[in-house]
Amino acid sequence: MDFAPSARAADLIERVRTFIETEIDPVEEGYHREVAARRAGAGDPWQPLPLIEELRAKARAQGLWNLFLPAGHEGPYAEKYGTLGGAGLSNTDYAPIAELTGRSFLAPHIFNCNAPDTGNMEVLLKYGNQDQRDEWLDPLLDARIRSAFCMTEPGVASSDATNMELRAVVEGDEVVINGRKWWSTGVGHPDCKIFIVMGLTDPDADRHHRHTMVLVPRDTPGVRIERLLPTMGIHDEPHGHGEVSFTDVRVPVANIISGPGEAFSIAQGRLGPGRVHHCMRLIGLAEKALELACERGLSRIGFGKPLINLGGNRERVAEARIAIDSTRLLVLHAAWKLDTGGPLHALSEVSQIKVAAPNMAQQVIDFAMQIHGGGGLSDDFPLAAAWTNARALRLADGPDEVHRGMIARLELGKYGAKR
Amino acid sequence: MDFAPSARAADLIERVRTFIETEIDPVEEGYHREVAARRAGAGDPWQPLPLIEELRAKARAQGLWNLFLPAGHEGPYAEKYGTLGGAGLSNTDYAPIAELTGRSFLAPHIFNCNAPDTGNMEVLLKYGNQDQRDEWLDPLLDARIRSAFCMTEPGVASSDATNMELRAVVEGDEVVINGRKWWSTGVGHPDCKIFIVMGLTDPDADRHHRHTMVLVPRDTPGVRIERLLPTMGIHDEPHGHGEVSFTDVRVPVANIISGPGEAFSIAQGRLGPGRVHHCMRLIGLAEKALELACERGLSRIGFGKPLINLGGNRERVAEARIAIDSTRLLVLHAAWKLDTGGPLHALSEVSQIKVAAPNMAQQVIDFAMQIHGGGGLSDDFPLAAAWTNARALRLADGPDEVHRGMIARLELGKYGAKR
Amino acid sequence: MDFAPSARAADLIERVRTFIETEIDPVEEGYHREVAARRAGAGDPWQPLPLIEELRAKARAQGLWNLFLPAGHEGPYAEKYGTLGGAGLSNTDYAPIAELTGRSFLAPHIFNCNAPDTGNMEVLLKYGNQDQRDEWLDPLLDARIRSAFCMTEPGVASSDATNMELRAVVEGDEVVINGRKWWSTGVGHPDCKIFIVMGLTDPDADRHHRHTMVLVPRDTPGVRIERLLPTMGIHDEPHGHGEVSFTDVRVPVANIISGPGEAFSIAQGRLGPGRVHHCMRLIGLAEKALELACERGLSRIGFGKPLINLGGNRERVAEARIAIDSTRLLVLHAAWKLDTGGPLHALSEVSQIKVAAPNMAQQVIDFAMQIHGGGGLSDDFPLAAAWTNARALRLADGPDEVHRGMIARLELGKYGAKR
Amino acid sequence: MDFAPSARAADLIERVRTFIETEIDPVEEGYHREVAARRAGAGDPWQPLPLIEELRAKARAQGLWNLFLPAGHEGPYAEKYGTLGGAGLSNTDYAPIAELTGRSFLAPHIFNCNAPDTGNMEVLLKYGNQDQRDEWLDPLLDARIRSAFCMTEPGVASSDATNMELRAVVEGDEVVINGRKWWSTGVGHPDCKIFIVMGLTDPDADRHHRHTMVLVPRDTPGVRIERLLPTMGIHDEPHGHGEVSFTDVRVPVANIISGPGEAFSIAQGRLGPGRVHHCMRLIGLAEKALELACERGLSRIGFGKPLINLGGNRERVAEARIAIDSTRLLVLHAAWKLDTGGPLHALSEVSQIKVAAPNMAQQVIDFAMQIHGGGGLSDDFPLAAAWTNARALRLADGPDEVHRGMIARLELGKYGAKR
Repeated sequence: MDFAPSARAADLIERVRTFIETEIDPVEEGYHREVAARRAGAGDPWQPLPLIEELRAKARAQGLWNLFLPAGHEGPYAEKYGTLGGAGLSNTDYAPIAELTGRSFLAPHIFNCNAPDTGNMEVLLKYGNQDQRDEWLDPLLDARIRSAFCMTEPGVASSDATNMELRAVVEGDEVVINGRKWWSTGVGHPDCKIFIVMGLTDPDADRHHRHTMVLVPRDTPGVRIERLLPTMGIHDEPHGHGEVSFTDVRVPVANIISGPGEAFSIAQGRLGPGRVHHCMRLIGLAEKALELACERGLSRIGFGKPLINLGGNRERVAEARIAIDSTRLLVLHAAWKLDTGGPLHALSEVSQIKVAAPNMAQQVIDFAMQIHGGGGLSDDFPLAAAWTNARALRLADGPDEVHRGMIARLELGKYGAKR
Repeated sequence: MDFAPSARAADLIERVRTFIETEIDPVEEGYHREVAARRAGAGDPWQPLPLIEELRAKARAQGLWNLFLPAGHEGPYAEKYGTLGGAGLSNTDYAPIAELTGRSFLAPHIFNCNAPDTGNMEVLLKYGNQDQRDEWLDPLLDARIRSAFCMTEPGVASSDATNMELRAVVEGDEVVINGRKWWSTGVGHPDCKIFIVMGLTDPDADRHHRHTMVLVPRDTPGVRIERLLPTMGIHDEPHGHGEVSFTDVRVPVANIISGPGEAFSIAQGRLGPGRVHHCMRLIGLAEKALELACERGLSRIGFGKPLINLGGNRERVAEARIAIDSTRLLVLHAAWKLDTGGPLHALSEVSQIKVAAPNMAQQVIDFAMQIHGGGGLSDDFPLAAAWTNARALRLADGPDEVHRGMIARLELGKYGAKR
Repeated sequence: MDFAPSARAADLIERVRTFIETEIDPVEEGYHREVAARRAGAGDPWQPLPLIEELRAKARAQGLWNLFLPAGHEGPYAEKYGTLGGAGLSNTDYAPIAELTGRSFLAPHIFNCNAPDTGNMEVLLKYGNQDQRDEWLDPLLDARIRSAFCMTEPGVASSDATNMELRAVVEGDEVVINGRKWWSTGVGHPDCKIFIVMGLTDPDADRHHRHTMVLVPRDTPGVRIERLLPTMGIHDEPHGHGEVSFTDVRVPVANIISGPGEAFSIAQGRLGPGRVHHCMRLIGLAEKALELACERGLSRIGFGKPLINLGGNRERVAEARIAIDSTRLLVLHAAWKLDTGGPLHALSEVSQIKVAAPNMAQQVIDFAMQIHGGGGLSDDFPLAAAWTNARALRLADGPDEVHRGMIARLELGKYGAKR
Repeated sequence: MDFAPSARAADLIERVRTFIETEIDPVEEGYHREVAARRAGAGDPWQPLPLIEELRAKARAQGLWNLFLPAGHEGPYAEKYGTLGGAGLSNTDYAPIAELTGRSFLAPHIFNCNAPDTGNMEVLLKYGNQDQRDEWLDPLLDARIRSAFCMTEPGVASSDATNMELRAVVEGDEVVINGRKWWSTGVGHPDCKIFIVMGLTDPDADRHHRHTMVLVPRDTPGVRIERLLPTMGIHDEPHGHGEVSFTDVRVPVANIISGPGEAFSIAQGRLGPGRVHHCMRLIGLAEKALELACERGLSRIGFGKPLINLGGNRERVAEARIAIDSTRLLVLHAAWKLDTGGPLHALSEVSQIKVAAPNMAQQVIDFAMQIHGGGGLSDDFPLAAAWTNARALRLADGPDEVHRGMIARLELGKYGAKR
């Protein structure tokens, strides 16, 4: 049970830390101010700022690029587009990097390590064929394009993935797609060119073989971005979360990933490492929030004392430290289980972190917001967006309740319970 | 300890309920859709929709107008602009009306019972002189204008009201105002014409006599709305929350309310009934959220069952019911104490509800959001705005921690503790 | 919704308060010290101390006797044994008296208002026939004897009352009883002479008509107290909680209360007011604990300050005040609903308090224990026993989970859900 | 950050597991039944049962003896009395053994690894001189005697160790001790022969150099066990927790450990590994409770379903799994920090686990109690004792609040805060 990063990872972690501190931290506040100004009328917040491209070029030049690339699946891509040294990192090795990038809104994008592109690239690596990789994975690793993952639907309880109703019917050498998705993250970005869409192909098959994953280029006729959804009022420009309708959309059967009816197992395989990434980023986000809370709490004075010394604030600092540290260890443990036993041996562990990390982060950020007063709710600090991020992750990739159900099922299974 | 409304109040409660059900509920969703469309580019969300004026006229015609008008202070205004029967309601009588209006974003405005105008009108009623009332109270009761309350500042911990640094210096027959306020609610509305501003007049006076309340017309030279602040990304158009700068703003000394150095005691007097209103509206909001949760939970199916029957959801329904009912009783009790003993005998009770109600509402709404999945975070349901409202009220009118401190001080005072 | 006690009740409340302060408080600590000494070998803790009889005589002489006697059912007993003025009190009137007695371990017994005797007397009043009342109710009201209620069984999940397996079979003019009960409170007391036993009579009847309530004198052949059970190590001498076996126990069919198969509805009817009593006593217990916490926290010094000023202790004082006050109002509200609408209109309210009050009390007492350090866990303070009392009431009379289930069922029933 | 046990430790862990399963588990319930019978009058519960000696002999014969012996300090003792292989284990290596022993009330004693003897032996190893070790450490390692640690006092807030008032005055070649201690664990056992007593020697020295640790044989004139204290009604016979008075107790100055004024730093050094032991035992205890909850919940039927499937029970299983696993990782991390950096580099980590583990265990055990109904509160299951153990550890070795204070101090120190 060794969570220490390898020497190569340790070196990368330090380089990422330095890059964030020297290249991203100094410009991040200005970035958000500019986006806010655009929102207030000074421009189009959905057009990416040039700053992003500049920073990506710098990061790439330093080999801090595609670090998420999963070990064992990287093939020729690690050398072509990937990490220093040319091989993928284990989940345990990548986890501290994800934590660092989670401290910043921009960092994941700068290093080409942002959801949902990472998960989509992983799907193409693990389940795509060479043609699909050449057409879509290559430009994604090269950051020429971006992608979206279209799974959740407005009309059904999507926490049960077998509920999905969008149809993806095979007709001859085409797949015909009809239906509606929402919370498709990233569709607001002008570079978002390819969607991975989960659709119902065979309603009569068993529950876990009814759905198919299909690659749908954004410009296919019948695809329409209906609107961009706010999350607690926040749009996350220029990426956004969209509602997308598909009306008689036709793509070749060659666009099916892995095979008809394979969507469920692809979704499962996609989500293990992705959840580790999300959770480690939340650890970083919570650390950032705690830092802001301590700094604000020590510098602001109320009733003759630093705010941090009023009421139960110091106890909340202590509880935050305990919660962050124990959750980080839990996530590292899940990463290590994924690395050593594979996803099927880490089902409970991955569900555990998916419950623990967003709830922990939400709690720590709430404290930081409270100590910032009204500022904590505004966009002068990254706290409102951070809270919204953590809150959304109590639903995204499966709501808390579904994961608790999975953990309980596995626990009770030890005693012979069937379900 | 009788919390039952008087016969007259019972009649008003039923009329308000009917008005909301027949006039407001059917149009509210469309209202929000129109505002969302404007936000997305179809118009100016800061321009009030004509619907509001139409509904206000109807409500007024039915005598459902200015029902908040506090008994004992209503003077000639109850007859001129006020409630059926021409006299103010007690806090206990008004509380169930506030609960009903809290179920809707629009209702408080329709009945001319929205914060901060109610609190500002109360200040003018209780502490203003006849000239000030004629000039500002009369049009507020008539809904010709709106108002803002400028207290919180960006530069200091405003949870300690004695910290306020904006200067309000008496020079001859003028007050000269310099400084900056934020979270001034309502300043985004085109009808917002008058600000009540709390400023530091005499830094050498004792802590509670340093500040002065001054009436500052919005169009006074030197007053500038710097920006409108999002709360968790939400702007609450067309009212909004603003940051306002005051640069050499000069108003006559006749604009001082009550007298120099009286701001602190005015603020205290203003907040008792206002907190009851806020808290009762939160009760209504939580009831609404629980309704939505039950309806959604019973109608959506996941894993072969209605969502409400999965995991611990039914226990959460029960906990919500307990929390709402006990908090409502706590608020009614505080209202009854205000009515029977006055604000100085209800200090602990008012602080208790100020802690209990927003936290309770936040919890219940969070559950409702969770059961709505992604929809709960979007603006398709009133839940994200409701949560933000409850969250903001853990800070507005004094953060939780300050109120807990007050309650503890009063409790320990029973045992002789000085502070 | 008027929770104020009637004038007569207000007078009784003051008399009870005075009696506790002048007669019970001064001797209670000594009483517990004596029982502790007996436990440690200086005597038999299961023999009641004479002090109890002396205090009971005094209370009775002052008319502070059987105050629980339910209005509307008291018949001739109110005059013979009952309260000043000769009529029963409403639940709302009795509630503050129950709160006062809950502050003390002894008080409920002194006023002949302790569980389970009160509930048993209520059963006899409401469901017993005149012979049964003459034989058992009369001496209970006169405190010549005590009683037990034998419902919970060791072998089945007794949270579901229809599970009970002890057989109570009608054979000719006898009922033959075989089986085992536990947590039969009071069976350790030498005066405990009569048991009300719930047994399975007709397994083929519908779920709610299978069981019968039977009066079983303790000295009936075949009745055996197997052992006295500790609750978290505490035996509550001299009353205790016993495990009782029934082996071919035969009593006349005349000992059946109400009729065969009526046990379930009797149990339901018995528990409404009884739960109000329990919950109001817990309010009193929590108030007592908070008092002890404040006094200890102000007088003990650590790290140069009174303990109450360290860490989050003052916030915990505030939270305790909020929790106690809101729970008290909830209990008063349930009492008022019982008085005005009867038990069938107060099902949710009674379940709500049954969840809220023990959990609240446990929390407040835990805080008081913590601030007392090791003393809080010892028997030098009433806190360990108080906590155990509150903890046990999360199970007794139905566990939290069953009550939450009932509340949810009633809530969802508003939306048409069948179960 | 490698938490995996060494090969030697892995072997020991398996042997300990096997020993507990084959030798202790089968007899433990009978043991407790016998002690309960003695408590109820069938004998003296304070006399150890012979079973203990038999099991200790077996464990020792298998080399499962003194496994706690700290690496780096074990000197010749590891070979003479110690572990297989003759060298001490690191904290990380010992932690899983402590977890296993924590599942059982008996196991720590069987392996001579129980508090407070382990901590006392550690003090003698690290701070005692050779004479002290020969006289007291040797028989403790040999289990010929037992020991107590006398620190907490009834008269002062002992959470602040500098408060201790018992005097330990050096007069010539004697130390004269006067005062009173309580919660001295183990003094009820007939083999308890030596007390380590912390006394005030020089009130004028700086806060952390006023107190001295003195070895006081139990039979020294003037030492008196005043009484044995119940913890929530539980006496933990035959060890117990005592109140001890010291009246003109005189021992040679040679009985001072390390030197006058050194008590504070000894106490600090003693508590690091001891807290890891306590916390790992609590992990084991919580695992045991969760097992019992799952087994009971799956086998008992209520309302037609296994109890575990009712209400939120499955979510509680999941929350328990998350809490146990994350807390275990936190404790292992603290052990690893102690091993790699020493106690001064693990101050925050040790305080973190001291807060997290007892609170976690208390929560999990409470759930298990609840699902056991009345049985969970009785002594038929180990749950009531387990809960009491966890509850007591929220106070013993420093209350939660003090540890939270320490964590906050260290956290805020990162930002330059002095205190």
